[in-house]
Amino acid sequence: MKTKAGINKPWGGRFTEKTSPAAESFSASIHFDMRLYRYDIAGSKAHAKMLARIGLLSGAEVEQILDGLAAIETEIESNTFVFRPELEDIHMNIEKALVEKVGAAGEKLHTARSRNDQVALDMRLYLRDESHHLLALLAELQKGFVALAREYFGVIMPGYTHLQRAQPVLLSHHLLAYYEMFARDKARLSDCLQRINVLPLGSGALAGTSLPIDRDFVARELGFPLVSANSMDAVSDRDFMVEFLAACGLIQIHLSRFSEELVLWSSQEFNFVEIADRFCTGSSIMPQKKNPDIPELVRGKSGRVIGNLMALLTVLKGLPMSYNRDLQEDKEPVFDSADTVSRSLAVMVELLSGLSFNREILGHATERGFITATDLAEYLVRKNIPFRQAHAIVGQAVAYCIANKKELTALSLEELRTFSETVAEDVYEILGVEGSVNSRAAAGGTASTAVMQALTKAETDLGI
Amino acid sequence: MKTKAGINKPWGGRFTEKTSPAAESFSASIHFDMRLYRYDIAGSKAHAKMLARIGLLSGAEVEQILDGLAAIETEIESNTFVFRPELEDIHMNIEKALVEKVGAAGEKLHTARSRNDQVALDMRLYLRDESHHLLALLAELQKGFVALAREYFGVIMPGYTHLQRAQPVLLSHHLLAYYEMFARDKARLSDCLQRINVLPLGSGALAGTSLPIDRDFVARELGFPLVSANSMDAVSDRDFMVEFLAACGLIQIHLSRFSEELVLWSSQEFNFVEIADRFCTGSSIMPQKKNPDIPELVRGKSGRVIGNLMALLTVLKGLPMSYNRDLQEDKEPVFDSADTVSRSLAVMVELLSGLSFNREILGHATERGFITATDLAEYLVRKNIPFRQAHAIVGQAVAYCIANKKELTALSLEELRTFSETVAEDVYEILGVEGSVNSRAAAGGTASTAVMQALTKAETDLGI
Amino acid sequence: MKTKAGINKPWGGRFTEKTSPAAESFSASIHFDMRLYRYDIAGSKAHAKMLARIGLLSGAEVEQILDGLAAIETEIESNTFVFRPELEDIHMNIEKALVEKVGAAGEKLHTARSRNDQVALDMRLYLRDESHHLLALLAELQKGFVALAREYFGVIMPGYTHLQRAQPVLLSHHLLAYYEMFARDKARLSDCLQRINVLPLGSGALAGTSLPIDRDFVARELGFPLVSANSMDAVSDRDFMVEFLAACGLIQIHLSRFSEELVLWSSQEFNFVEIADRFCTGSSIMPQKKNPDIPELVRGKSGRVIGNLMALLTVLKGLPMSYNRDLQEDKEPVFDSADTVSRSLAVMVELLSGLSFNREILGHATERGFITATDLAEYLVRKNIPFRQAHAIVGQAVAYCIANKKELTALSLEELRTFSETVAEDVYEILGVEGSVNSRAAAGGTASTAVMQALTKAETDLGI
Amino acid sequence: MKTKAGINKPWGGRFTEKTSPAAESFSASIHFDMRLYRYDIAGSKAHAKMLARIGLLSGAEVEQILDGLAAIETEIESNTFVFRPELEDIHMNIEKALVEKVGAAGEKLHTARSRNDQVALDMRLYLRDESHHLLALLAELQKGFVALAREYFGVIMPGYTHLQRAQPVLLSHHLLAYYEMFARDKARLSDCLQRINVLPLGSGALAGTSLPIDRDFVARELGFPLVSANSMDAVSDRDFMVEFLAACGLIQIHLSRFSEELVLWSSQEFNFVEIADRFCTGSSIMPQKKNPDIPELVRGKSGRVIGNLMALLTVLKGLPMSYNRDLQEDKEPVFDSADTVSRSLAVMVELLSGLSFNREILGHATERGFITATDLAEYLVRKNIPFRQAHAIVGQAVAYCIANKKELTALSLEELRTFSETVAEDVYEILGVEGSVNSRAAAGGTASTAVMQALTKAETDLGI
Repeated sequence: MKTKAGINKPWGGRFTEKTSPAAESFSASIHFDMRLYRYDIAGSKAHAKMLARIGLLSGAEVEQILDGLAAIETEIESNTFVFRPELEDIHMNIEKALVEKVGAAGEKLHTARSRNDQVALDMRLYLRDESHHLLALLAELQKGFVALAREYFGVIMPGYTHLQRAQPVLLSHHLLAYYEMFARDKARLSDCLQRINVLPLGSGALAGTSLPIDRDFVARELGFPLVSANSMDAVSDRDFMVEFLAACGLIQIHLSRFSEELVLWSSQEFNFVEIADRFCTGSSIMPQKKNPDIPELVRGKSGRVIGNLMALLTVLKGLPMSYNRDLQEDKEPVFDSADTVSRSLAVMVELLSGLSFNREILGHATERGFITATDLAEYLVRKNIPFRQAHAIVGQAVAYCIANKKELTALSLEELRTFSETVAEDVYEILGVEGSVNSRAAAGGTASTAVMQALTKAETDLGI
Repeated sequence: MKTKAGINKPWGGRFTEKTSPAAESFSASIHFDMRLYRYDIAGSKAHAKMLARIGLLSGAEVEQILDGLAAIETEIESNTFVFRPELEDIHMNIEKALVEKVGAAGEKLHTARSRNDQVALDMRLYLRDESHHLLALLAELQKGFVALAREYFGVIMPGYTHLQRAQPVLLSHHLLAYYEMFARDKARLSDCLQRINVLPLGSGALAGTSLPIDRDFVARELGFPLVSANSMDAVSDRDFMVEFLAACGLIQIHLSRFSEELVLWSSQEFNFVEIADRFCTGSSIMPQKKNPDIPELVRGKSGRVIGNLMALLTVLKGLPMSYNRDLQEDKEPVFDSADTVSRSLAVMVELLSGLSFNREILGHATERGFITATDLAEYLVRKNIPFRQAHAIVGQAVAYCIANKKELTALSLEELRTFSETVAEDVYEILGVEGSVNSRAAAGGTASTAVMQALTKAETDLGI
Repeated sequence: MKTKAGINKPWGGRFTEKTSPAAESFSASIHFDMRLYRYDIAGSKAHAKMLARIGLLSGAEVEQILDGLAAIETEIESNTFVFRPELEDIHMNIEKALVEKVGAAGEKLHTARSRNDQVALDMRLYLRDESHHLLALLAELQKGFVALAREYFGVIMPGYTHLQRAQPVLLSHHLLAYYEMFARDKARLSDCLQRINVLPLGSGALAGTSLPIDRDFVARELGFPLVSANSMDAVSDRDFMVEFLAACGLIQIHLSRFSEELVLWSSQEFNFVEIADRFCTGSSIMPQKKNPDIPELVRGKSGRVIGNLMALLTVLKGLPMSYNRDLQEDKEPVFDSADTVSRSLAVMVELLSGLSFNREILGHATERGFITATDLAEYLVRKNIPFRQAHAIVGQAVAYCIANKKELTALSLEELRTFSETVAEDVYEILGVEGSVNSRAAAGGTASTAVMQALTKAETDLGI
Repeated sequence: MKTKAGINKPWGGRFTEKTSPAAESFSASIHFDMRLYRYDIAGSKAHAKMLARIGLLSGAEVEQILDGLAAIETEIESNTFVFRPELEDIHMNIEKALVEKVGAAGEKLHTARSRNDQVALDMRLYLRDESHHLLALLAELQKGFVALAREYFGVIMPGYTHLQRAQPVLLSHHLLAYYEMFARDKARLSDCLQRINVLPLGSGALAGTSLPIDRDFVARELGFPLVSANSMDAVSDRDFMVEFLAACGLIQIHLSRFSEELVLWSSQEFNFVEIADRFCTGSSIMPQKKNPDIPELVRGKSGRVIGNLMALLTVLKGLPMSYNRDLQEDKEPVFDSADTVSRSLAVMVELLSGLSFNREILGHATERGFITATDLAEYLVRKNIPFRQAHAIVGQAVAYCIANKKELTALSLEELRTFSETVAEDVYEILGVEGSVNSRAAAGGTASTAVMQALTKAETDLGI
């Protein structure tokens, strides 16, 4: 009475037609999910131990499985493992190889789990590792900024708003702004890690399992502080990936901002910094060119990182419960963003060590542009002139300077007093850039004292 | 020797030409940033008190300012305040009105601050409020799901993967999957709040101020646990907005998933749920129509929420330090996403109370589709058949059923035993949907015991 | 036997419960679709004439309707029309007002149409107008670039790659690059217009109508060259909006690129251009600042334009046939992008007239940086040295110059000949920037002859 | 006097430091741009012929180069070519191999061109091919829809709005809606092709060349109807790629809509269609499952296609003239979208041939849900009742039916006349779904006559 056996797939029992080659190739994921092998094997080991613990595997069986999995891992790492696209994905490739190695015990491994909870586990293990990796790289990058801030401590440069020279600042202060951005990136990743770090295994395809599994044991084995609370949610949840992609987006945006500055600063017009030759390339046609390729590429790569975030959000929009195959499209954007951001961070860490700031040019750049006008206004405020009036007075003084092609510092006391009688000899102290910089001493300001405090704190926080 | 006075703008001292009307209208933000008035005034009050504290305002002056600001707030809230586009933004509109009210004291208010740190402050205060508002709405929505889960406790429905009936689950289990999603949304918003909750005021235009401000005092006044650590970063940081927008994106994606289910479930084909008439509309041409407009709109609104995230990321890409006018483009996407998400949550909270599930139809839906096939496989596993073999055996049984137009439950023991001799009379216990559901009793599973536990925990967590 | 009448909505017959205020306000579109009134009325007029033509309206009725609609249009334009949110949208607001004005005739207007085809019509009429408007603005902008190219004809500046000085070019050549970009934008919009310009009316809710309508008549009345070919497609098609949004995206991207250049060029470091005061603003705290706000805002607004494209694509993803309420979310992004792009173009047209290029500084900028190195290489090629060798020779000459702090032009013939014996006295002709520029005379090159040809062609094409 | 030679790169003359391995690997593009080899070689051949034509290559040299390039092409296609990452990209890999093969002649090939115009050329040749490929696939897909429309001609199904049954339509009418969408996609791609089909070669790095090139000759050789008009624009223009990506976006969105319908229709609830086993997969845990994986994946892949569009727009935002290295980030999104869309189209073409619609179930689905209510309203209009009144009358009839659990078709004439006295015996003709469908006979409607006309036209247009 038995019907003809189904097709030769792990799920083929009820099927009467072989998968079309086009469909097989279209739906295979092995070419990109193979990189999860390490996590897939780790998950399977923990799962097997648990199955033994609850009596669904014998001691001998679990040993066979653990040995088999270890052998497979070795084969993969030594490039001797043959991946078979017709087995669709990394899970089936490993399981099939295991069965071929250890026989019946291997056929028991998939007990009480589904690829739906298995892939969720793999991705969580993968992203836990990646997050730790990014955290370490972010710290390295911060160290790079801190090292530069210390090396160039005391160098004054124009601070910009609207790309117009605004007020003089310490170069170190400017560099430490990036320290802060990457500190927030670390905090965001750490928060994300808490939502990554939840065990989904045991959710089955969507509804859990009727077998007496011990999820807490598996969680302990794999270092998860929490197990997922709802099986349907657990197999369809991709929030942690979106959150990771969004965190990556901001990291790369921060890198793009610094890259923009490096491109500007290494232009002939700014000439604030020299990027070491080893991070630049030339032109195939213009022999004199030296191009800031790395910062340009890092800036450009913000496109793909943001695109990946958009991709996954689009995938998720409007999907009903629980697992849908659309979710297979989660992996490539996540892999690509993790790779892009980690490679961008790593190359930036190196590049920071190849920056030489032109102290002299930075200094000269603050000499023109009425860059201490605000100091003059605040000087007047201290002389009890309401700020709005002070601002207007200084505005007129600047207009006068423009008309007469002078800098504020070049005005005589007599000239200055035509704008406000309250101006006295001591005005020249604050019109100079050094005085200006050092007067901004409140927390977060650019005075040497404030910046040194920030720098020291940063070094402490980074364990330098 | 004075040059001709500048133009009539708060910054007009050095300008010799009036702003072009086209430029003025193009760059004005008052039509959208006016909604920040409350936060702008709160910030100004705290700032004024601090200025008094450090001696830059007299006691009388600060009183005048506080009274003036309070009066302006009242005028705005009673719609008697006249906003002037030529004053560009909310900050200048309020300051100008203050000067008109209280004279010279008002001209001192902008001492030691800039619009750059002021607007950063306003947005942080605004988003702190909005985040708390969303957190409350998310809790309300969770309560709605919990209430439904309790009301329909015991009702069994098909759980789906790939929109195919997969395994029977409790409706309550399905509903609680959404409880989990919104719990994560709350956690994400709470994390984001920590990065919102930092005082930027005192950063000036970019470099701090030379005046002896007391930032900690202002922080305490406004309830900020932290002050920003770097003035250049503080005026150009929009991370907290991106993070807020990303959190909004996931909330709306979650809503879109539930909306999709409501649309499906209220179709004639599913007929799982009736949405109360008060949440539906009809057709201007088809008299019989009753359309699930609210879920459709909520689903559709995921577009704008994701679009807003994309918009701000694009704005930030490649911007050099520190403040650039591009950043004015931060507000509308943030306002729109905050409004969209809060309105979507609010209407969803109401709508949940207008859902009537069709218990009978949900039950019938589990009767067909071999929905307990996995239970049969796990039954065989318990009889010591390796899972892969068990899976294949059941696959053949299903193929047999399809060929013979029968359900698994309708197979005789004899028929079943043709597929595996280990099958015994007790198989019928697990082939029924109720037995199937209740067997999945591990943590996170769909058994009544597990779901009741989850439900009770949820009620406790929500303070029900 | 009649059941209790339904609720008081145009579609309320079968409903037993009033719409919830929350749902009503959540789903109303009148606050944004009111701006379609002109198109809605034009469409209704054409529809009414057609209904008369096929005998479903009498001559008297159609007159009443046309007069009524004209009166409503006048009321709206004189701000005396009262929009009622409870009537949901512009279509119902106008129809209701019409019925109140002209009675029974008005109740016949909605014959043989649905809001689904009506709103599709309105949006097509709107986008046809907007596209023509943008085309005109793009032409104005091109004229602005052409005028500048003529005004500054002959001025030489550095051409950049990687923001490094690469080769000297005519400023006019650089400006005409933008002429080309906006020419493509016009071509794209014109192509899009062909797909906008299709009459959807007559598609009913989704399936057409059983009444004997004359779609060709309506198409002629409204100036549509084509009628839609499939009613289900016609009511759910939003492609033309996506295409319009994508075309807007590229326009704004082009504007963002030119804006970036304006921001760079008006920095103190470049100082290539002065933007007229009337397009700049100052700082509320720094009296000396003059900021390029307009280009910054234009650049920043690329965020929202791209975000809007993302928004609509997200809305459409995965929507089944035919009309779904999600599609209501199409309007705001389309309105916002049309407004943003047209306002950005308009302000840019004005701003172009306020640019003063610093001829002297542009000239000086080409003096340094070995900017004619490629010319030297091509000189060697003409002396029969293979290009790769020529490139290497010049590279060494440049390295020599850097080491000796000289420019190529400052090398003596003797020095030059140490790198290649083939160098002769005539080398100095091509080492000068003018000779360099004018040698690049192939089509599309930067030689005065080539650029004058391009300029003249542009003027002709623009009808100047 | 010669300085020490530069580093061993094609551009290394002026460099004193070797590229860092991290930077080299970070900036290499050979792993993805190698797929351009065919276009790079074709472009080089045309360029070499032109160089010979203007006397910069001898007849012997050009022969050597053409033979060398042909040999390289053969090597690449037979997988014997060794790509070297340290040579950065496909252009340098091929040129270097050529020099190794043919010596000095090879060193002349890069005369009068730059990688900047070379890569622009390669991408235009590539996208011209890809566009033609997509156009062919789109036509195949249309043929698939047309074939189904003919096979099932006459089958009636519910047309949906809001996923609610709205009016009966022909299945063929529904299928031909997709024919229309893909027709628009073809039109869009064809328009895009005109902007792709422009020769950029001859633009040099950015400024053209001083050598007497013949661009028209190269254009003719490569089949370009136009040469680019501005060299700076030509090397920095990526519009054609964005436009291609946007066209891909809409194709995939259309596919996502049809995929959504296939997923819905193959659910147990709808059961409208059976997807052949060869396009489905099963579950690793649930033996009874048959999942519509292909449509799900196609739907999900809309994420990456939209993400790629966002990625490139982000890259371009705010880039100054002319070439910047960021532009290297253009290729991967373009390749990925071209591949994704062409593979999705190809698998969909196959899948269409594996669809079996359940005629009986589709028919039954129109029996309930008052699906001909609009016909009743239009019937009343023909009896001279104003449409709004007719709509209200039918609304009441429907409410009566719901209350009495009847369908409209089951109402007696007496019952019907309680709602409107004008109803007569002939009403039953239009209450039946067949009469209903066939009455909608205006252009674009669902009547058999109209659909047959559309079908025949489609077949003619497709050359069937």
